Amino acid sequence: MTHRPPAVILVRPQLGVNIGAVARAMMNFGLTDLRLVNPRDGWPNADAGPAASGADAILDDARVFGSVAEACADLHLVFATAMLMRPITRRVVTPERAVAELRAVELPGGLLFGPERTGLETVDLAVAHAVCTIPTSAEHASLNLAQAVVVCAYEWMRQADTMVPEALQHYSGPAPMAELENLISDIDARLVANRYYSPAPGRPEAARLTLRNLLTRPQFSEGEVRTLRGIVRILSVPRGPAGER
Amino acid sequence: MTHRPPAVILVRPQLGVNIGAVARAMMNFGLTDLRLVNPRDGWPNADAGPAASGADAILDDARVFGSVAEACADLHLVFATAMLMRPITRRVVTPERAVAELRAVELPGGLLFGPERTGLETVDLAVAHAVCTIPTSAEHASLNLAQAVVVCAYEWMRQADTMVPEALQHYSGPAPMAELENLISDIDARLVANRYYSPAPGRPEAARLTLRNLLTRPQFSEGEVRTLRGIVRILSVPRGPAGER
Repeated sequence: MTHRPPAVILVRPQLGVNIGAVARAMMNFGLTDLRLVNPRDGWPNADAGPAASGADAILDDARVFGSVAEACADLHLVFATAMLMRPITRRVVTPERAVAELRAVELPGGLLFGPERTGLETVDLAVAHAVCTIPTSAEHASLNLAQAVVVCAYEWMRQADTMVPEALQHYSGPAPMAELENLISDIDARLVANRYYSPAPGRPEAARLTLRNLLTRPQFSEGEVRTLRGIVRILSVPRGPAGER
Repeated sequence: MTHRPPAVILVRPQLGVNIGAVARAMMNFGLTDLRLVNPRDGWPNADAGPAASGADAILDDARVFGSVAEACADLHLVFATAMLMRPITRRVVTPERAVAELRAVELPGGLLFGPERTGLETVDLAVAHAVCTIPTSAEHASLNLAQAVVVCAYEWMRQADTMVPEALQHYSGPAPMAELENLISDIDARLVANRYYSPAPGRPEAARLTLRNLLTRPQFSEGEVRTLRGIVRILSVPRGPAGER
């Protein structure tokens, strides 16, 4: 276990439904340690469960503390999420940077989130090592509590080694060049027969290059080349009586 | 204006409160273009306003469409957000990569999000150029709709002044979806006329999906789509005497 996910510490959260939504977001991105500092409506809160949508284990394990300092007592590196509104003697970093530092330190860390209406107070910020500010539109910087947690939790997952690599599902790789070549020359022969190419000097060559480029760039698979050849063949069949429009 | 933020397209959204939360997330991260495809409870929806928390302008400007294709008609690059559950002939990328490509293309783009309960259907995915999968905990991959939008919108903001992937030379970016749609329906009509589709139950639908997949994945440019339409037209012309072999 090299990277224990950071604890999420909600300071004086107001709404149970937000606590539930936070738990769901944590679960989605692999975080498990939820801590509550003086939740307004006490704990447990009946509104939290439905919003958690299956993250009940996180709610069940949530611990309640009487102060930010107590909630952070066992943590080695703590970031306070806050908007940049007042001067503070702390580094201010992006979620990207905060998570990178939490991962690098390989010791238990945490992220503080303030109450819905007001955000963290200066005294709360003072407990943290640094401030984490989520980049937002300048005019509309106020994030919903759960959505702020989503951003930080997503960053945790994004920076994991287990990230989904770019992959093409259900794609067997490009067809052998010979098959692509057959498709191109098949189309070319039919175009010649139907007088597609202008006789002007250089024009057939340019048109052929365009055709080749647009059929090569997609890296069609064998199956796709086969389908295209079938389509080209059918398109070229003169329409019978039943197909006439 | 180099980078128009992507449109957020909610396909058959169920709950007004989620639509409102999506609008708020969009506003937080600088997105403005909200599109709704067949919202379950109609539009406008009285539940959306309170959840939007000040993003009323986005709700007021939201447009309603009758199909995914219509909602995407003017967009050049579209990603469908989905969990990796079934094989699909599309690239599957992270939100990081999807946003990097949307920023790089410098043409109007969009992000599709499915209904809360089920996510996007295969036919919806087929309209998109690629699939965007948010990295999550393997056991708890189901994200709340608004929180999925938060992740993608945050990525848009996060990459505000960072990297662009290397560009493809001599490629003007994907054509508007409407032009691709015209190409597909043109080919389809000609195939119907020439009795390409087997009458067996389900077979025409499967063949149409295959056709759509192989024409969508390459992200053909406007010029390429035009060339393809010309080729299809010429191929379908019955051969005159000079072209007979």
